[in-house]
Amino acid sequence: MTELKPIAHTSPLHEFLAPESIAIIGASADPTKRGYKAMVGLIKGNYAGKIYPINPKVPEILGVPTFASLDDIPGPVALALICTPASTLPKLLADCGTKGVKGAVILASGFRETGPEGAKLEQEVLNAARAGGVRIIGPNTSGMFNLHKQVNLLALANVKPGDIGFISQSGNMLLALVLEAEHNGHVGFSTYVGPGNQTDIGFNDYLRYLGEDEHTRVATLYVEGFRDGQRFLEVAREITPLKPVVVYKSGATEMGKKAASSHTGALAGSYAMTVDLLRQVGVSVVRHSDQILPVAEGLALMQKARGKRIAVIADGGGQATITSDRLSDAGLELATLSEATQHRLSEILFAQASLANPIDVAGTSDADPEILARCMQIVAEDDNVDAIFLVGMFGGYHTRFAESLLGGEMRAAEAMIELARSTAKPLVIYSLYVPVKPPALRRLHEAGLPVYASIEHAVRVLQALAERGLYLQQQHGRPLHAAVTPSDEMLAMFARASNEGRDLYEYEARSLLRTHGVTVEPERIAATADELGEIAAGFGERPVAMKVVSKDILHKSDAGGVKLNLIGESALRAGYDQIMSACHRYDPNADIRGVLVTPMAKKGTEIIIGVVRDPIFGPVLMFGLGGIFVEILEDVAFRAIPLSREDARGMVEQIKGRKILAGVRGDPAVDTEALVDLLLKVSGIVAAYPQLSELDLNPVIAYPEGYSVVDARIIINRAIMNA
Amino acid sequence: MTELKPIAHTSPLHEFLAPESIAIIGASADPTKRGYKAMVGLIKGNYAGKIYPINPKVPEILGVPTFASLDDIPGPVALALICTPASTLPKLLADCGTKGVKGAVILASGFRETGPEGAKLEQEVLNAARAGGVRIIGPNTSGMFNLHKQVNLLALANVKPGDIGFISQSGNMLLALVLEAEHNGHVGFSTYVGPGNQTDIGFNDYLRYLGEDEHTRVATLYVEGFRDGQRFLEVAREITPLKPVVVYKSGATEMGKKAASSHTGALAGSYAMTVDLLRQVGVSVVRHSDQILPVAEGLALMQKARGKRIAVIADGGGQATITSDRLSDAGLELATLSEATQHRLSEILFAQASLANPIDVAGTSDADPEILARCMQIVAEDDNVDAIFLVGMFGGYHTRFAESLLGGEMRAAEAMIELARSTAKPLVIYSLYVPVKPPALRRLHEAGLPVYASIEHAVRVLQALAERGLYLQQQHGRPLHAAVTPSDEMLAMFARASNEGRDLYEYEARSLLRTHGVTVEPERIAATADELGEIAAGFGERPVAMKVVSKDILHKSDAGGVKLNLIGESALRAGYDQIMSACHRYDPNADIRGVLVTPMAKKGTEIIIGVVRDPIFGPVLMFGLGGIFVEILEDVAFRAIPLSREDARGMVEQIKGRKILAGVRGDPAVDTEALVDLLLKVSGIVAAYPQLSELDLNPVIAYPEGYSVVDARIIINRAIMNA
Repeated sequence: MTELKPIAHTSPLHEFLAPESIAIIGASADPTKRGYKAMVGLIKGNYAGKIYPINPKVPEILGVPTFASLDDIPGPVALALICTPASTLPKLLADCGTKGVKGAVILASGFRETGPEGAKLEQEVLNAARAGGVRIIGPNTSGMFNLHKQVNLLALANVKPGDIGFISQSGNMLLALVLEAEHNGHVGFSTYVGPGNQTDIGFNDYLRYLGEDEHTRVATLYVEGFRDGQRFLEVAREITPLKPVVVYKSGATEMGKKAASSHTGALAGSYAMTVDLLRQVGVSVVRHSDQILPVAEGLALMQKARGKRIAVIADGGGQATITSDRLSDAGLELATLSEATQHRLSEILFAQASLANPIDVAGTSDADPEILARCMQIVAEDDNVDAIFLVGMFGGYHTRFAESLLGGEMRAAEAMIELARSTAKPLVIYSLYVPVKPPALRRLHEAGLPVYASIEHAVRVLQALAERGLYLQQQHGRPLHAAVTPSDEMLAMFARASNEGRDLYEYEARSLLRTHGVTVEPERIAATADELGEIAAGFGERPVAMKVVSKDILHKSDAGGVKLNLIGESALRAGYDQIMSACHRYDPNADIRGVLVTPMAKKGTEIIIGVVRDPIFGPVLMFGLGGIFVEILEDVAFRAIPLSREDARGMVEQIKGRKILAGVRGDPAVDTEALVDLLLKVSGIVAAYPQLSELDLNPVIAYPEGYSVVDARIIINRAIMNA
Repeated sequence: MTELKPIAHTSPLHEFLAPESIAIIGASADPTKRGYKAMVGLIKGNYAGKIYPINPKVPEILGVPTFASLDDIPGPVALALICTPASTLPKLLADCGTKGVKGAVILASGFRETGPEGAKLEQEVLNAARAGGVRIIGPNTSGMFNLHKQVNLLALANVKPGDIGFISQSGNMLLALVLEAEHNGHVGFSTYVGPGNQTDIGFNDYLRYLGEDEHTRVATLYVEGFRDGQRFLEVAREITPLKPVVVYKSGATEMGKKAASSHTGALAGSYAMTVDLLRQVGVSVVRHSDQILPVAEGLALMQKARGKRIAVIADGGGQATITSDRLSDAGLELATLSEATQHRLSEILFAQASLANPIDVAGTSDADPEILARCMQIVAEDDNVDAIFLVGMFGGYHTRFAESLLGGEMRAAEAMIELARSTAKPLVIYSLYVPVKPPALRRLHEAGLPVYASIEHAVRVLQALAERGLYLQQQHGRPLHAAVTPSDEMLAMFARASNEGRDLYEYEARSLLRTHGVTVEPERIAATADELGEIAAGFGERPVAMKVVSKDILHKSDAGGVKLNLIGESALRAGYDQIMSACHRYDPNADIRGVLVTPMAKKGTEIIIGVVRDPIFGPVLMFGLGGIFVEILEDVAFRAIPLSREDARGMVEQIKGRKILAGVRGDPAVDTEALVDLLLKVSGIVAAYPQLSELDLNPVIAYPEGYSVVDARIIINRAIMNA
């Protein structure tokens, strides 16, 4: 484990999350009260700063002299823990401001979560805090600790100091992790904060603090809801290259149920979108709550993996098979061992051993457990291997086979520790003897090598190490696609649409795309049937599509406002008449401006590209195949805008339908680089025009060479346009 | 936990898996040898039967007099443990037969797994055993134990006797479960067997034994490969109504890679198929190795659930949310609590508590943990609730809040134990204090109420309890669809095809289906173009499809052998000519018998129905949507033939594409009952004609009313036809 490098502090949170002095407002002599327990936590924890209990009624608490008010405290106060009820808060925050308190931890509930009255009170508290320059943790927080400063306002006993910083909207989850770490874990904790209502300080602020904190090796967050997700993504983009960030996001099944005016809108806001965006900025997203600690531990204690190629060394065939299954589920690969490696293994293993990965030592180690360490050394030197995974009975050989093997086990443990120090590849160990805590596993534990009790958890850790390694190689530092320069003409077009109280007409949307380099088939607009003759002549024998132009008709096909495969003037005229009468029947009051005529796209693969401005995460791009892939399977990828070329490639590679893009039943592959370009161009346009609220290119037809945008719809952002 | 009822013994395995006398062939005085360790296991375990060590060189081992050979033993021998090398086995098995030994445990390896020589030796051993009426465990087995008979041939220390019977192709997996049960579990073990090469006794035999064993409450199996999967399904169908059967099947990622001549063939043999078939007969299939013990425990200790509606009681909002997410992932539901239940809860919980499921007590229990037990009692009485799930800090209240709460926690534990006894609904408990093993959790443990350390594991247990409850209600006892009575005409048709060395022509396949009640559009065969006039007249203005009839052209479309949407004689003649010349170009030697003409199917939803005879599991039916659903997404369901109507319904409900069957974008739902009928008819036909090897109905078009079989292909079973 390497030393953590100091990182410059830019977050204001350091001043009060690592405070030199603490006032406890509502300090109490009643042992059941938080205002007493926090005092116990500080005193028992040997807090070295000043403790100022505020209580006008008693002269001292636990031997510490009290003060009647903040005013009476002689020196500066960095942090105030406020244990009094909600109604007292506005006044107290004003007092804090006067005193120059930097941060306040507000335990009280009874704010936004209780209704409009509470929300009003919460706003008053925030106003008072802002006026006095006081930052707020909470309200409605479970509290905080910083064990490296001996600050333990939760008065939790037996919390091991260590490397894991934890921000959790669930107090139970903190307790669960603390107990798991104490009894079965390999790590301790640095700073914990319960963000509560996030009235002032949000996850992005806490993440920056943990990112800069020299005692935190892994920032771990349990999140029920982000308040400023876009800012969180920006901060995570800065922090993840410095240290691992682990997020468990709950509420996976309750989101994405809102009504929306576009396909993209309907799918955005989902748990799947949140996961995609977090992964885009290098966050390790954990989906099972019992994997939070193992993953955080693994990232804290082990090297990242260069890639996904895992060498498995097992002392039982069954567990080797299980491991292969689980690695494949996790998107990892069994490394193809070099011939040299297999030869070296053959020199130390029995003839019946399996030298192809997964390596099954087939009894060779039964009488000599050091063989396992030697196998690990050999595969660690193979360039085809990114990580080493030992699976089986290690630690239990002396109980399973013969007491005399204990020496060999201890020597093997030392060799593994030495290997972990000397190689850049992670060594992940699963042992079925973990519940017994035998000497060799205790030795590994002391040396900071985690040993997992479940193959599944160990594989999840390998996945996190590989994803982190690949992210840092592939994503970090890649330039984000720049916004295009807005054109005056296009700005005027947006303004015109806004003035007319409508969204963009399709021909305007096509014009915007074309202006900024997107390939769009030419179109002609016919305001009246009389113009169709010339238009028909222009397209000649090429079949065209005709679509109604009306701000009032959103679902053109449903209204009978679309005709396909028309050739020649008479067909165009007939189509025009049919469209006009159908749309008139559909909505007699619709303002119909004519029809758009454009060449039919050739047959190809239907794609959907969409953009929404998510209320939490800001502008988000969506990519998927059309039809049932988007409608039934919701097989789409999301990325926050702006995105890098690697991000765009990742979208194309992520969807299940990628097999179709690669060509099925002898079809040629589609031009995915052209789609990547299109995604980046859309990103650049969205970044340049805040006037654009939602965009749907549905469908885009992808070809072996290039693509064709068949329908484009752009919703404008009235809030911005009217500002 | 109810008493296990005695079950009549029909398995011959009882005689030697619960043996009255044991001979140890190759008993040894060397403490490192299995022939010594087994003696230690028997003596230390207080085995009450006779022990006969066979060793001509020493007079006694561990104080037990030895015998020079089996012959010298005075009394009968039920079981022989054979510790000698592979080459000695044929002779020894003959000796066992002479002595009347019932079963032999063969440890030696060096058989089939080493190549043809070993396979030959294995066959010799089997022949000798069969000749003498000796059954074989192994060879290449890790051994066996029956702790209720004090038989421990593995000499494993510290294995708790208990309710879990375990058959495992991985010795490491046994060790892992034993250690996990000892340190963190709630159960012990009855009988263990390592089936080794399954030369004689296979998983189906062991399952019947465990099913009948009065000391086994749950039969648990780790399976790398079944040898007779069809028989296993039959036995499981009998056993699962009596007791739970848990299977972990490994090799999930290595199967299903074989070449195949049909879509069904390509998808059959997969892990997904194995899972479907096991679930069809009521087996609980576990996919994560670390969930084997929790699921087996849960099924051993708790009642099955009537259904999927779970009431969650949580003392923290975050974990309540996590639980909701995980329940939804597992296909379980949050029960809708009755108004009466919510009212009763409101009387004991704080105003800020959430009374809608998940119930968040919101601090009510902080000073009175008995509240949790009272909430459990209240929801247990709600008819809308099938299972109760307590989530949070229970057991740790006295450490988290105040020592004085210990009494309340113990009273709550007693109330939960009482509730578990009096209700028919399972109580599943997750506590974050499990690692601490506090008094209240120890009390629950003693009373046989498991407490889980992970929300994910607890949810997996709830899922197993619900699936078992639903299986017993919905599936068990439902009649399997009977085989049709084979028609002489159809039998003659199969014989004719076989004689001609070909599979069925499509018109023959259609005829078979039609004969047995499947709705198939009429078809006409034209051997020459001259017949097309009359045929065209017969179909009138109805568009028809024309397909080449040739045993040599498997992929008719690829060969240009299909023409669609033909109307009238001239179109038919043109189509005929095109087909003939295209097919002739495609394969100049093809034996072309003419064309099949049949009405075009109306537009509808494409379905694929297929049958294969799997080498392991026998006849298997497959159902899915056509096109990308089967080709790209492999979104299909499998059931073993014969199947019940419930099984057929389950296939339709299981696939992801069911949303399409239910109607999307305003389309009407398809007639799923007609599809269910079709599946059952196909099952009946396949069961009646062993001559049928593979069947593909691809596509079947499903309509809001009825269906249309558009293409039918039947491969015949040459092995049977030639027999």
